[in-house]
Amino acid sequence: MLTNKGSARKHLIALVGFGTVAQGLCKILIEKRDTLKRDHHFEFEIVAVSTRSRGTMFHPAGLSLSSLNYLSQNDTPFVENVKDWDAEEMIRESNATVVVELSHTNLVDAEPALTHCRTAFKTGKHIISGNKGPAALAYSEMKGLARKRGCAFLNEATVLSGTPTLSFFHSALKGNQISGLRGVLNGTTNFILSEMESGSSYDDALQQAETLGYLEADPSADIDGYDAQAKLAILASELFDLTIELGDIKREGISAITQVHIEEARREDKRWKLIASLSVRDDKIIAQIRPEKLALSDPLAQVNGTLNAITFSTDLLGDVTITGPGAGGVETGYAVLSDLLTLNEGVFA
Amino acid sequence: MLTNKGSARKHLIALVGFGTVAQGLCKILIEKRDTLKRDHHFEFEIVAVSTRSRGTMFHPAGLSLSSLNYLSQNDTPFVENVKDWDAEEMIRESNATVVVELSHTNLVDAEPALTHCRTAFKTGKHIISGNKGPAALAYSEMKGLARKRGCAFLNEATVLSGTPTLSFFHSALKGNQISGLRGVLNGTTNFILSEMESGSSYDDALQQAETLGYLEADPSADIDGYDAQAKLAILASELFDLTIELGDIKREGISAITQVHIEEARREDKRWKLIASLSVRDDKIIAQIRPEKLALSDPLAQVNGTLNAITFSTDLLGDVTITGPGAGGVETGYAVLSDLLTLNEGVFA
Repeated sequence: MLTNKGSARKHLIALVGFGTVAQGLCKILIEKRDTLKRDHHFEFEIVAVSTRSRGTMFHPAGLSLSSLNYLSQNDTPFVENVKDWDAEEMIRESNATVVVELSHTNLVDAEPALTHCRTAFKTGKHIISGNKGPAALAYSEMKGLARKRGCAFLNEATVLSGTPTLSFFHSALKGNQISGLRGVLNGTTNFILSEMESGSSYDDALQQAETLGYLEADPSADIDGYDAQAKLAILASELFDLTIELGDIKREGISAITQVHIEEARREDKRWKLIASLSVRDDKIIAQIRPEKLALSDPLAQVNGTLNAITFSTDLLGDVTITGPGAGGVETGYAVLSDLLTLNEGVFA
Repeated sequence: MLTNKGSARKHLIALVGFGTVAQGLCKILIEKRDTLKRDHHFEFEIVAVSTRSRGTMFHPAGLSLSSLNYLSQNDTPFVENVKDWDAEEMIRESNATVVVELSHTNLVDAEPALTHCRTAFKTGKHIISGNKGPAALAYSEMKGLARKRGCAFLNEATVLSGTPTLSFFHSALKGNQISGLRGVLNGTTNFILSEMESGSSYDDALQQAETLGYLEADPSADIDGYDAQAKLAILASELFDLTIELGDIKREGISAITQVHIEEARREDKRWKLIASLSVRDDKIIAQIRPEKLALSDPLAQVNGTLNAITFSTDLLGDVTITGPGAGGVETGYAVLSDLLTLNEGVFA
């Protein structure tokens, strides 16, 4: 069994945003406090939480369990440990050692998350982001600022929700050269396509996805492939250390797919999937998102519902595929925990 | 990108056995010497190679490229740097820091590999084993001896050939509690079943597997599930720190499956797979190997040819599956490299 040989220290966590992912993370951290300490020498306190509508809570020694439970079970303004700070001030002024950025993703200018990250690095705090904006739009700048301050900039939660893709790449595939990847990177569109396979119309499936809370605030982010586009940009940076502009990733969503297409594919023993692909040749990236009609024997054709999957093309192992959850508060919360454990081991740069 | 912060030092490697896996490993090490140094601060020399029929080669400063090429391209006795040592003596007397144990797997008493491992630990050398014997039959003893001497006992190459399963579990799933697993763990039987799906008789498929070099020296190891049984025992130790005797793993092979069964399954939209499963309840392991008729929608039903796959049932992520190669010299050689890099990082216990 591998063990962490890094020096144990206590991580003081500040959360920007308190939606389903932050709540999932808190649930895990609270339930696993003892095993995380025993098995991973990981100790923490959540010292601050800042939200747009409910205010900011802060306690330098850590918010109490009852405060965190209150946070999870209510959506009224905070009543204990209230602090007159916005997120910026919380990042700057609190004693947090690591900021978990979980505000809404903005793929136009990445704000306010981008400013949050800059402030965190300026004040020597690590960033773990579940927000795709900073990594998709400003990876190089972020990584540069982080390095300069000896800080981490970790993004596991931005790619395949909870499925530990970046960790898999950095740890389990080490030593391989990757020439490309193909994946089902968006759980919501995959859910919609799977519902349509089961007979739903596009509109009904979309409605169902909304009811279940799978849709982004702006549904177009999922449906039209912007979410997958951002994920590909992040993968390009993480896997290849190469920058690609979002606009340089060809993008086609699923809104033109109808029951006629679904039926036609079925007759051909095929299935529609929104496929994100990326390949690298001579340090140049070619990336695109588009619906593809896959043979049922294609492993990605069997990735149904909100599952996600990614196939890495490697020089030593050929294709290696990882399949796992593509949505969910606890699942995505786990990705943040995974980054916290990476931080704890001190193996980042 | 993650980087290794451990202190760089040169690993002096001794190989026990020089079959396809050792040759695959050497090919990778020689081709990637520069990138392994640059990207992973990993430096090495292969100082010794011992075989049963060709003798032992040794040079304390490292065997030359031409010697290693000679090794790979000939099966005549060694001509350069010949040393009058058997494997035991090589392990004891050479200046190796790590012994890569790649002699033939013996699931009766694990010899001679077991003695090789004991000698290595006694003389303070790490063991990386591609031989399933020591880990399947004597994991606790091996791990105990290794710990006592501050040595590693690493077994990535024993489970899913090149697919980095243990590394995935230890690194990418860290923090999860695993309640069980299901997998296609034997590439050869999976190849035979896939050939039978394509119309071959059992005998023809078996013959084909032999021609392609997929069968173990004793075909029964594959066909009757002994290989998968050993892999499950290793997984029980690695994942759950629990010991299970091989005899306590229920085992049924594929030799009773005929074209009649294959056809019957096809009519039901199903497919036969040799499934290894393991679950843990109250620290008690239940493990078995048996052919199962899977619905085509089951992700494991789509794992064809010599591919392997394993699905981990986790508390935070639900099911997470990894799929990759289950055979091949370079592929399995990669698993040894993966362990060498783990050793280099110093994160083992």
